[in-house]
Amino acid sequence: MSPLATETRPAVSARVGIIGSGQLAQMMAQAGIPMSVEFSFLAEEGEDTRCVDALGNVVVRYESMDAEQIFSAMGRPDVITVEKEHVDVQLLRRLAVLCPVHPNPKALAQFKNRRVEKRFLQSLDIPIAPFHEVREKADLENAVADLNAPVFLKTEEEGYDGYNQHKITEENREDVINSLPYPGNWVAEGFIPFEREVSFIAARSTSGDIVFYPGVENLHRNGTLLRSLAPAPDMSDSMRERGHSYVKKILQSLDYVGVICVECFVWGDELLVNEIAPRVHNSGHWTSKGAITSQFENHVRAVTGLPCGSTETHKVSGMLNLLGVTLSAQQALNAESFLTLYGKTLRAKRKLGHVTVLADSYDHANQRLDELQALAYPEG
Amino acid sequence: MSPLATETRPAVSARVGIIGSGQLAQMMAQAGIPMSVEFSFLAEEGEDTRCVDALGNVVVRYESMDAEQIFSAMGRPDVITVEKEHVDVQLLRRLAVLCPVHPNPKALAQFKNRRVEKRFLQSLDIPIAPFHEVREKADLENAVADLNAPVFLKTEEEGYDGYNQHKITEENREDVINSLPYPGNWVAEGFIPFEREVSFIAARSTSGDIVFYPGVENLHRNGTLLRSLAPAPDMSDSMRERGHSYVKKILQSLDYVGVICVECFVWGDELLVNEIAPRVHNSGHWTSKGAITSQFENHVRAVTGLPCGSTETHKVSGMLNLLGVTLSAQQALNAESFLTLYGKTLRAKRKLGHVTVLADSYDHANQRLDELQALAYPEG
Repeated sequence: MSPLATETRPAVSARVGIIGSGQLAQMMAQAGIPMSVEFSFLAEEGEDTRCVDALGNVVVRYESMDAEQIFSAMGRPDVITVEKEHVDVQLLRRLAVLCPVHPNPKALAQFKNRRVEKRFLQSLDIPIAPFHEVREKADLENAVADLNAPVFLKTEEEGYDGYNQHKITEENREDVINSLPYPGNWVAEGFIPFEREVSFIAARSTSGDIVFYPGVENLHRNGTLLRSLAPAPDMSDSMRERGHSYVKKILQSLDYVGVICVECFVWGDELLVNEIAPRVHNSGHWTSKGAITSQFENHVRAVTGLPCGSTETHKVSGMLNLLGVTLSAQQALNAESFLTLYGKTLRAKRKLGHVTVLADSYDHANQRLDELQALAYPEG
Repeated sequence: MSPLATETRPAVSARVGIIGSGQLAQMMAQAGIPMSVEFSFLAEEGEDTRCVDALGNVVVRYESMDAEQIFSAMGRPDVITVEKEHVDVQLLRRLAVLCPVHPNPKALAQFKNRRVEKRFLQSLDIPIAPFHEVREKADLENAVADLNAPVFLKTEEEGYDGYNQHKITEENREDVINSLPYPGNWVAEGFIPFEREVSFIAARSTSGDIVFYPGVENLHRNGTLLRSLAPAPDMSDSMRERGHSYVKKILQSLDYVGVICVECFVWGDELLVNEIAPRVHNSGHWTSKGAITSQFENHVRAVTGLPCGSTETHKVSGMLNLLGVTLSAQQALNAESFLTLYGKTLRAKRKLGHVTVLADSYDHANQRLDELQALAYPEG
């Protein structure tokens, strides 16, 4: 008999350890498993790991575990990557001694702290909104006097999706300034009367090749992404090229490997970078249906040393987030609407899933998103 | 607290029981799980269930189990469907008393037996290749005298992918005719000097709506599908319309729900139906990358009472089967090539996975398939 007759499995193409166990880890694993990539996940104690339980080995991190123990519990993966907003960069630095970590910890450290991120972008001559660093009460008084109201005061770390933010207006300025505990670590951002928010998603492979998805137009509600539309309508070639050049600068300067999302304000002809997510991003979820290769597959390809797949798009794509609410398949689906639920338990504001819409025109995409939004959020 | 704060999960949209546990069940479940469909699988004793182990409850069928016990062990699903070539229609009839079975057992019974299938197609005035029913030696002698050589003698049931077939030529006719055990249950098919084989894949929903994928051109080797190309190049409108009209007749006459694949010979301007697969089919695997909605998602949508998704295609798609061989992601992937491995153990001739190729032209698709085929089958 040939050796094929024995019960062996085809070689695994890579073993990827993901720091995190939420829906982004889930969708990366779903994209990678058919390519014979195996996954393990690192969850914090008490974290709900339901999204990834069936997709690989889930390791719960106890405080006493060191990097070597974590690496070993995760099955000594070939590469480690991240799915979370807030990563333990210290841990990643220690893990990077044991296997490649993509994106690399030095890159991730740039995006963990708002002040560091803004300084980094300034160092690359990438336009950002005016801001002040705030430690003491006087700093905040200065910032409020100098910046356009309302001023958004954000913690340097840990804030996302509108959490840990203060909106300082003419009316509440005295109250807020007097109520905060000083010294603190904040960044105060002036108001940009932007017309819209767009994001640029790209992937860079270990060989340095970069692929770009088209820019995405995003609509937020209470600081959380609600809707996306791709390609972003009416984006001039010049603006797109600027967006791509900013992304390229960021990726190359950090020798970054994987998917990145650069969120920007569009203000007249200005394109100001607002925030960077060093990972697959909610505003790229439409790529699973609307692009030849999804952001999830491209992240897995990139971090495992494979060439990125084509980012060509099919039609107009729209995405509606299901935040603390859900839609049944019966409600969500039609010939060009697709439902993705993450299998999480219901909880207010929680990202439970999304609906993707493909359409031949922006009008049709928006119309369908409006219908779905009305169904998902009947109270508006 | 609102009721959302409790640990409840969003309602499951449907629970689907699949008879079978191979790669087709795997890909249906992978497509359905994000739509909040839950799956269970029925495997025969000793069957390798690796493809679906992580995707739902796997029930092993012991001989002593009756339909009620099987239904109960599968979690009393809302609907039952099939993924196998050879289904136990008796069991499905009994299960159909307990829940809907799609496609319905009456329909499945038409395609389980070659003779019955051919009689059924004749009853619908659908053109097929000439054939003889063979029970006794004299029947076979008649058939060989009447039909074009070579004559293919196939068992009425259980043969697929080239197994259980005899090719009767001028040279071996005496030997074969004398060596067979009579009486038997065979069908003898005359040789059709066809130019190519094409398949038509469609899905019919519970509301009776039908969606068609474009015709697919298929290349077989040793009776097993090796390559597909879609849309089938150079197919005249008239031939496509005939193909679709045959599929429509079949679906409607049987009140069939789900995906069907109708395989045909193209012989000059003739389109002759060769074989019908009442399920998702290998020649539709390209739809996961090359069409807006995959055949797997459409089958799940159809059998759970949801509307079918768009079957619009993006580009030219090609598919290469990995039969007893595998390719690493490093070998298979480039910007427009995608790897799907089923997680099976290696065994000669076994369907282990496939590569899908998207391209802007048939030349490019074929060129890439040639490259991949040379890599996968270095011995030709």
